[in-house]
Amino acid sequence: MTATGNSAPLVFTSGGLDRAGDLRSDPNWLAARRADSRARILLFSQLKPLLSGAEGAAETALRFLSRADANRLGGADADEVFLGLDGETAYFARDVSASGNEVAKLGVEAHFHDARAALDLLPISETAIMGQAKALIDWHQRHRFCSTCGAKTAMEDGGYRRHCGPCGANHFPRTDPAAIMLVVRGENCLLARNRRFGVAHNHSALAGFLEPGESIEDCVRREVFEEVGIRVGAVRYSASQPWPFPSSLMLGCIAEAISSEIRVDGSEIVSARWFERETIRRMLAGEEIGGVKLPRPVAIAWHLIRTWAEG
Amino acid sequence: MTATGNSAPLVFTSGGLDRAGDLRSDPNWLAARRADSRARILLFSQLKPLLSGAEGAAETALRFLSRADANRLGGADADEVFLGLDGETAYFARDVSASGNEVAKLGVEAHFHDARAALDLLPISETAIMGQAKALIDWHQRHRFCSTCGAKTAMEDGGYRRHCGPCGANHFPRTDPAAIMLVVRGENCLLARNRRFGVAHNHSALAGFLEPGESIEDCVRREVFEEVGIRVGAVRYSASQPWPFPSSLMLGCIAEAISSEIRVDGSEIVSARWFERETIRRMLAGEEIGGVKLPRPVAIAWHLIRTWAEG
Repeated sequence: MTATGNSAPLVFTSGGLDRAGDLRSDPNWLAARRADSRARILLFSQLKPLLSGAEGAAETALRFLSRADANRLGGADADEVFLGLDGETAYFARDVSASGNEVAKLGVEAHFHDARAALDLLPISETAIMGQAKALIDWHQRHRFCSTCGAKTAMEDGGYRRHCGPCGANHFPRTDPAAIMLVVRGENCLLARNRRFGVAHNHSALAGFLEPGESIEDCVRREVFEEVGIRVGAVRYSASQPWPFPSSLMLGCIAEAISSEIRVDGSEIVSARWFERETIRRMLAGEEIGGVKLPRPVAIAWHLIRTWAEG
Repeated sequence: MTATGNSAPLVFTSGGLDRAGDLRSDPNWLAARRADSRARILLFSQLKPLLSGAEGAAETALRFLSRADANRLGGADADEVFLGLDGETAYFARDVSASGNEVAKLGVEAHFHDARAALDLLPISETAIMGQAKALIDWHQRHRFCSTCGAKTAMEDGGYRRHCGPCGANHFPRTDPAAIMLVVRGENCLLARNRRFGVAHNHSALAGFLEPGESIEDCVRREVFEEVGIRVGAVRYSASQPWPFPSSLMLGCIAEAISSEIRVDGSEIVSARWFERETIRRMLAGEEIGGVKLPRPVAIAWHLIRTWAEG
């Protein structure tokens, strides 16, 4: 077993708030935190978080607001998700998509920014809070109705449950586990180009969602065989990363290939090839080789590649 | 990093079918597999799978039926989930809860059996198929309506998607990742009694669901602190296990404690205490000590405890 890559913090992990899971299910406690003048609120419009300052800065931070300031943009009576505590300060997130274009009303210099692009601008400790808030707000927007009976549901427990009055069902925010695996064989690793990758030279590790009834290891073997026709033996877990687009949990693994011949599926994977460890090291050091672009360090794929290349 | 406990197969892992993910989304291919006389169908009634023979046998097997035999119990036009291929044979699962008490109509000796109890009766290779089928059937029963707009949805892709015509949303079967962690410190490990455990002497590892925005490691640290007041440093992943009650993915970890004093939450956890490694070894060997009952080998908790005790 392994110490799970805690040395190099991943975007979206660690540095979060005290979620106070034992307290937030008490409506009175939650109402008192909402009414507390110290409460801080993070606004989202179209799933974009509010950041400090004007657009275009190279570094910025999440712009938390007092309740009075937040209410200037509307939604005073809207559901809010409880993010957690930092000491005595309670943090919440609220969706203001209906009025998000009226940001000037806030009276503070701030702007809504694409969540994925914000990863390059925020301190890493704030990415965990942004990811938690975005995943929850997105889930509530897509789960206003009961999947069991079709009736409207209501938010409970500060956003960690929705309840259906008519049929009694409880629904909890979902997190979708996905395996992401660097396939290796001796001094080589396999990188592939996915059809979804915008740029023609982007290469990364393989990945896919776990299906019902699969272990991580079963999923890794199935996905690698489906996508590139390679058989995998041992699977070693390396680290995990929440990835709130919309609600994935990336389970990073190193997959030991027991065959070499690549046969790409042609639908999801456009091309795939083996790279020597030394080549990967040079690319990680900034050298451009054959125009291949590796994943960015915000992605767990980059950490898998680096861990293997250095190991 | 570690080879992930593949040496001792866990119930619900491995031995499954070829899920044919690239083929099952083709309605024509799927219709041909359904019409094929070799197709085999596993029936469920009230989420209980059909097993061979009369009730009470110490060993049995899943009772797959031909389509003609399955239709005797109704549901000929019902949605079926596609489980996968074994060579040329396609396997499906169908819910017949409405007529499940008429099992005598089948004309074969078989009975519906509680899925959890069936774990003790089935060959391990069949538990993966049962788990996959149960998780899918259960999910469809509780997701007939669109969570986004409340309209009725339809099964697609052999059961791996539901589509909402009115709003266009696609919904995928959910898998809920949960961390299960053996807290250890030197020569001791912590076992706790959960309020949900029926028998007063049952002790096991701690566990809890991942929340949006959490890595496995973040979840382990939060849950351990919430439940027993202990701080955790390094977290080592050990193995994973699908647990279809109703749709969990258990992520088994060893959690290194960096404090010792136990403070149980009193709500979920009734009591918790440290056990010496030597005491655990003796209990694993069958000795009864203080009336404490360890988890059964079908649970990943047992594997975590054994892995640590032997390591």
